[in-house]
Amino acid sequence: MGTLLYAMKNFISVHDVDNIDALVQKAISYKADPLKDRLLGADKRIGLLFLNPSMRTRLSTQIAARNLGMEAIVFNMDKDGWKLEFEEGVVMDGTSVEHIKDAAPIMGAYFDILCIRTFPTLKNKEEDYNEVLVNQLIKYSGIPIVSLESATLHPLQSFTDIITIKEVFKEPRKPRIALTWAPHIKPIPQCVANSFAQWVNAWGEADFVITHPEGYELDTQFTNGATIEHDQRKALQEADFVYVKNWSAFGDYGKVLTHDAQWMLTEEHLRATNNAKVMHCLPVRRNVELSDEVLDGASSLVNLQGANRVWAAQAVLSEILNGSN
Amino acid sequence: MGTLLYAMKNFISVHDVDNIDALVQKAISYKADPLKDRLLGADKRIGLLFLNPSMRTRLSTQIAARNLGMEAIVFNMDKDGWKLEFEEGVVMDGTSVEHIKDAAPIMGAYFDILCIRTFPTLKNKEEDYNEVLVNQLIKYSGIPIVSLESATLHPLQSFTDIITIKEVFKEPRKPRIALTWAPHIKPIPQCVANSFAQWVNAWGEADFVITHPEGYELDTQFTNGATIEHDQRKALQEADFVYVKNWSAFGDYGKVLTHDAQWMLTEEHLRATNNAKVMHCLPVRRNVELSDEVLDGASSLVNLQGANRVWAAQAVLSEILNGSN
Amino acid sequence: MGTLLYAMKNFISVHDVDNIDALVQKAISYKADPLKDRLLGADKRIGLLFLNPSMRTRLSTQIAARNLGMEAIVFNMDKDGWKLEFEEGVVMDGTSVEHIKDAAPIMGAYFDILCIRTFPTLKNKEEDYNEVLVNQLIKYSGIPIVSLESATLHPLQSFTDIITIKEVFKEPRKPRIALTWAPHIKPIPQCVANSFAQWVNAWGEADFVITHPEGYELDTQFTNGATIEHDQRKALQEADFVYVKNWSAFGDYGKVLTHDAQWMLTEEHLRATNNAKVMHCLPVRRNVELSDEVLDGASSLVNLQGANRVWAAQAVLSEILNGSN
Repeated sequence: MGTLLYAMKNFISVHDVDNIDALVQKAISYKADPLKDRLLGADKRIGLLFLNPSMRTRLSTQIAARNLGMEAIVFNMDKDGWKLEFEEGVVMDGTSVEHIKDAAPIMGAYFDILCIRTFPTLKNKEEDYNEVLVNQLIKYSGIPIVSLESATLHPLQSFTDIITIKEVFKEPRKPRIALTWAPHIKPIPQCVANSFAQWVNAWGEADFVITHPEGYELDTQFTNGATIEHDQRKALQEADFVYVKNWSAFGDYGKVLTHDAQWMLTEEHLRATNNAKVMHCLPVRRNVELSDEVLDGASSLVNLQGANRVWAAQAVLSEILNGSN
Repeated sequence: MGTLLYAMKNFISVHDVDNIDALVQKAISYKADPLKDRLLGADKRIGLLFLNPSMRTRLSTQIAARNLGMEAIVFNMDKDGWKLEFEEGVVMDGTSVEHIKDAAPIMGAYFDILCIRTFPTLKNKEEDYNEVLVNQLIKYSGIPIVSLESATLHPLQSFTDIITIKEVFKEPRKPRIALTWAPHIKPIPQCVANSFAQWVNAWGEADFVITHPEGYELDTQFTNGATIEHDQRKALQEADFVYVKNWSAFGDYGKVLTHDAQWMLTEEHLRATNNAKVMHCLPVRRNVELSDEVLDGASSLVNLQGANRVWAAQAVLSEILNGSN
Repeated sequence: MGTLLYAMKNFISVHDVDNIDALVQKAISYKADPLKDRLLGADKRIGLLFLNPSMRTRLSTQIAARNLGMEAIVFNMDKDGWKLEFEEGVVMDGTSVEHIKDAAPIMGAYFDILCIRTFPTLKNKEEDYNEVLVNQLIKYSGIPIVSLESATLHPLQSFTDIITIKEVFKEPRKPRIALTWAPHIKPIPQCVANSFAQWVNAWGEADFVITHPEGYELDTQFTNGATIEHDQRKALQEADFVYVKNWSAFGDYGKVLTHDAQWMLTEEHLRATNNAKVMHCLPVRRNVELSDEVLDGASSLVNLQGANRVWAAQAVLSEILNGSN
């Protein structure tokens, strides 16, 4: 198998990855032997900075860092700290207590790698899609930045998804993958869908179709290369993998346009598929996005995806450590 | 001294303990030499999952795990994460973000042992006394579960209490132990009282009396074997240990039936005892449950109890590690 | 260079330091070689107890402890735990759940060193200036206590500031240091200003002037020895270092007396200085306390101060460990 051509500096999107297949192999090798590089990160320190809640991402990244011998320190900026300011030149006479320009260099002095979790506003599209926080952290911290989900992307999740698909699919052909929108009770970021589309397209080893109600078109910078099909039944035909996810509208930004329960994925929806495996990043709203029968059935990969988060994070951190040595 | 006949799978109640005396000896041996098994848990990971606040339990379990060489990761589900759903078959269109059926298997993949702290609703007796959360975690996580206090029991506290009594009482006879209800300003779970009764009864090495105002009868599944005496003065006579604790009603579930300050334990109450030692699990409402003079006097064991929490947790984790090796 | 005459017991104020210059040298030696004493704190445990938010202090102290081989456990008393009571003899029938007299001994049993962060009420001057919490912790925990900022002082910050000044100033004369008040939008503790004044005075190696609007006089127990000058322009003349900080009134306790933007430090203010370096403890309200141009310019030492927090904490913990061995 291939070796990585260059080590990673940051991990913000698939563009930071030189060779997806090689990175997948690295992750799978950690799954087989989690502690094989237990000294790689010795005396290195990783900061995990949360501006929003997180369970799998938080825990899996801590575990991955420890498997590589790094010391991990978690900081809940929103609860242990205070509100950050991101705008340049602002008079800080409001609720923001500290500017990212002042917090980031200190983080850079304290840590060797900094991981950041932040959600979009879903109100200001330009601010969200410019990834202001992540880009300011890169600019002002001076150390490698790893996204634990940002305003527009969730690269550790998508990398995990590719690992899981490669682990499960053993036929000598390209898998057919359908990403389907599902209902939700409230506005949800586009991150997981954007990111999954970006990674599958970059990987290039799948027939990829995206299905959603009209009005839910994603940003074409991420979907370009995939087929868009508004008829869910048609999109699911012959699918080997069905990735289920809700997102709010990108066009009419952050809006919920429909709650149509027909889009909830059930066993009935799977009949026309090629005995498809079903994926979801979790947390999932049972019987809103996906039915109990699917989640509790043999076709569900959600637990495998959750478990694989560790190996995805470990491969990424390992690459960054290799680059920083 | 005896050896344990079998290793523990879970630690939810006294029923998970084969030999209480042997487990006490194990705890006391750790108190004498905290780091003697410092490699037992090497490369094992323990998750501490909190749905409710905790100080002593949180810190002592972390310390116990570290003394055994385990890596401990704390996760405040209520603050770092989101609200869990426990009901089967529910349409998750409300405030719960994730079902325990989806969270538990991931925890099972990430950790070797999972500790959980959860409080009762004090509103739905059936749900509380069925210990829905703990039982679902056991069912869906696939790894050993340790209760850090559940809806009805607090086994690490009660085990600590037995350790403390055995450490202090050196006479060649059974000690007389009185568990007395005390006032509080708000409804408090029955856990500590239930659990203390269950452990003292299972231990069988004490004359055990429980005293409380009428209406505060505990669930007989836990108290069966103890004398119930509504006259507090009478119950305290000749006691060697007085365990003070408030609880809300079990019958008229979760209700506060009286604030009668006569039940607050003071020095005056101790006169008829056998120079009794006084116990409380902490936190304690001073001059509501117990008077300052008792808490600050020589008869108080509350600091010893708090310190012994480490050795109780360490003995339990050690047993589970022995079982999982 | 000198050696410390005796090891530290607590670190609450400059009075706990026997030889400031020697402690600075120790910090600088850790900056040069962070892991040189990596076994000093082996098998020792440090508790970091937060009653208020913290970023730099929290992270730098954790890092310092780990550099010395200690295990650090963070506990957010306000969020993971509950409200503490400090008053003696009180009937605890209100919102406080546990008395410091009961919490402190358990902390003393669990940890080798205990660090505490607490803010003043800014309402009850006597309570704040008596440092009730810190003094009760010292009295009831029985272990060394390190202040991570208390009601009236911030000694780790001030020690860092002396380190930074000594690191930067290389001329064969005393530096001229001006501490200047700056505007803020809300009432802020006097801690940083009190503590900086106390340390600079105790150090004795500077010409020290404090400038603020009338009514903002600090407690003379800390400022005694410094020149007080109400004309900011005059105070800044020929300054080598300008320390910028807001504080609320000490006399009319906790009040904001003015928002006069003339006091915000700008490049223009620096013209009459001796090419002064500018200091601030962070977090800073940009364009309220200090202008962007100053913070982003070459005269700013704020990032260096933030980074030096690690070495200050490490030197202090090292001294305490030496004393406890």
